[in-house]
Amino acid sequence: MSYFSFELDPALAADPVFELHQRGKMEMSATVPLTSRDHLSLAYTPGVARVCEAIADDESLYSDYTWTANTVAVITDGSAVLGLGNIGPKAAMPVMEGKSILFKQFGGVDSIPICLDTQDVEGIIATVKAMAPSFGGINLEDISAPRCFEIERRLDAELDIPVFHDDQHGTAVVTLAALRNAAKLLGRRFADLRVVISGAGAAGVAITQTLIAAGVEGANVIVCDSRGIIHAERGDLTTIKAELAATTNLSGRTGGITEALIGADVLIGVSGGAIDESAIAGMAPGGIIFALANPTPEVPPALAHKYAAVVATGRSDFPNQINNVLAFPGIFRGALDVRASTITERMKVAAAEAIADVVSDDLRPEAIVPSPLDPRVAPAVAEAVAAAAIADGVARRGAPVAPETRTTAVS
Amino acid sequence: MSYFSFELDPALAADPVFELHQRGKMEMSATVPLTSRDHLSLAYTPGVARVCEAIADDESLYSDYTWTANTVAVITDGSAVLGLGNIGPKAAMPVMEGKSILFKQFGGVDSIPICLDTQDVEGIIATVKAMAPSFGGINLEDISAPRCFEIERRLDAELDIPVFHDDQHGTAVVTLAALRNAAKLLGRRFADLRVVISGAGAAGVAITQTLIAAGVEGANVIVCDSRGIIHAERGDLTTIKAELAATTNLSGRTGGITEALIGADVLIGVSGGAIDESAIAGMAPGGIIFALANPTPEVPPALAHKYAAVVATGRSDFPNQINNVLAFPGIFRGALDVRASTITERMKVAAAEAIADVVSDDLRPEAIVPSPLDPRVAPAVAEAVAAAAIADGVARRGAPVAPETRTTAVS
Repeated sequence: MSYFSFELDPALAADPVFELHQRGKMEMSATVPLTSRDHLSLAYTPGVARVCEAIADDESLYSDYTWTANTVAVITDGSAVLGLGNIGPKAAMPVMEGKSILFKQFGGVDSIPICLDTQDVEGIIATVKAMAPSFGGINLEDISAPRCFEIERRLDAELDIPVFHDDQHGTAVVTLAALRNAAKLLGRRFADLRVVISGAGAAGVAITQTLIAAGVEGANVIVCDSRGIIHAERGDLTTIKAELAATTNLSGRTGGITEALIGADVLIGVSGGAIDESAIAGMAPGGIIFALANPTPEVPPALAHKYAAVVATGRSDFPNQINNVLAFPGIFRGALDVRASTITERMKVAAAEAIADVVSDDLRPEAIVPSPLDPRVAPAVAEAVAAAAIADGVARRGAPVAPETRTTAVS
Repeated sequence: MSYFSFELDPALAADPVFELHQRGKMEMSATVPLTSRDHLSLAYTPGVARVCEAIADDESLYSDYTWTANTVAVITDGSAVLGLGNIGPKAAMPVMEGKSILFKQFGGVDSIPICLDTQDVEGIIATVKAMAPSFGGINLEDISAPRCFEIERRLDAELDIPVFHDDQHGTAVVTLAALRNAAKLLGRRFADLRVVISGAGAAGVAITQTLIAAGVEGANVIVCDSRGIIHAERGDLTTIKAELAATTNLSGRTGGITEALIGADVLIGVSGGAIDESAIAGMAPGGIIFALANPTPEVPPALAHKYAAVVATGRSDFPNQINNVLAFPGIFRGALDVRASTITERMKVAAAEAIADVVSDDLRPEAIVPSPLDPRVAPAVAEAVAAAAIADGVARRGAPVAPETRTTAVS
């Protein structure tokens, strides 16, 4: 039988976005036949009982004989959805479905969108822990800071499967890939870069940590939140911002974004707030501006090009789109391939290097990252992440099958 | 890229059940194209933001523009899996995947298996409530009695989507269908039937309630648990058994299954314990025996035929298989079709009548219920359930599309 009847609002149905979204964007299906009594007796009772008993006797068989080892939950509480803010779990679902189908399209990962009817930190942690046996990994999505930090930290510590907050680490990985190629193009050493990060939410915090892990000197990094430069003397810092104050801006600079940018080589905007021309005019010449706010970059690209040699945004209609889809499908593909128990800093840096390497032979100022549709990206990221997991001792399986024997999930 | 590498235990791989279960039995996939930048901008950012905003403004659009209205979670805590007992959430997953793919195959319902890492009543309720925005319905599965009664009652009261414990109501619906046709075949009135139910777990309790709702006189029903006949003088009754004691066995009969069966017209076994020939020999001649324990019926069919005119089991290798797959796909198909907020007694009875009617023109003692593979069953059940939901005022949509315009989900 078909799906339920459906009377669409004619005004909405005329919009191609709403036409596409009718009944959602995904479905599940069986991968085994179910059309005879024999099929039923193998896939369901009585045959299935033998598989249940085998797993009850040896839990390690769970990953081999269920779909869970290839399944990632995309979980949100709807508190920080795109640039729309706290729109709640139901309004967040179209984004989570979108994320789920990108997981499958680019990473071959089965993914399930879960929108939670709680924004309480303990409630979210308890719910995700209770559901966790159903999945091989947890992708947290669009959960507002600072709650997202505590939720990810606790879940990663308490679960034996990878937990990854994409708004933090997906953004950080792709930003690191882009910065690595921009620095290479400009002949600059990472350790010498003076970096200003505008925004101390999920993305800003993770970018700061990942850039430092990748070799940028913390002393040369300045992070700004809505109240200006984060420094150790401020009395209004959350736990995570106090950590930033202890590891960045060691010269103790104070003031706002204008003061922060004086002499800076790199501006990374992840705040959504506009940055005036007078502020970026203070940057060192020939530098790098990543204005990642969507849909409106912190600095219009044309203006950014007046003061910087390399410019990137989060938008698909300008060159150098810094988009998380370059990272998360391959990162989870690699983590699942070797049944990693967590996602380490080394795995994230490896992912960034793999993304950067895809275009490193043909670096140009307007092509420092691959296209989101480049089919080379996810397999390269997966392989690098799997190798890093093995090197870090968090893999519970050997290396995946050789890439040349793989079929592609990208149709 | 392909899925992870995979080294199977050779002994298990040689078993067709384990061969079939490699990597599980289901997958998810996109229903929209994702191979160009335009596709990404419609299905993901920036286009998706318009759908999110529309749902934030008008929550009723949620069901139209996400996959949730056609999605049912199959949720267990692994405490009472098949006849295997409390094997835990991971060992339960193969059954839940099986249930999920049967939902799709027979009802066109997208279904997600969720195995919970808690067996605490409040923990399960809190977890399911927190996840609930992600689904159009909740199918509870293999949760042990008496916890299952409290969990279902609370979730049904507190959520605005259908909540259905299949071990209770799926079994009860198919049993009612079978008993209706058996009584019709034998020319017996429901109100006159003296019924003994052996087993007071999830299935026994629900069968008792549903048969009484369908016209069997409670006074003429006797329920036995492992300690014998349930009657009002017993001091060891749980809340739910005390309710049974108040509505059944009004003559106050005492003793064990042998005493219960004296003069009975119908024996329904849902206990798993064997019932001696000497006990069934006391039944009224020409009656009905449903021995539903799997894989070993309470009474071997050959023996049951010595004392009863109609015999059914839960097994596929005997006639009259009483299997829940006749009920749950069509019940949820119908409930989702009209966006029912709950599943009422009338909807369950309507489902049973629809199942019974499929074979009512050709009733024979060895064909009182349709085959689990009969493609007529689920559409008939869905239509009857949707109509009953509308009649009961729990539908939030009009009637579904006309059946003749439907395509079948059975391939």
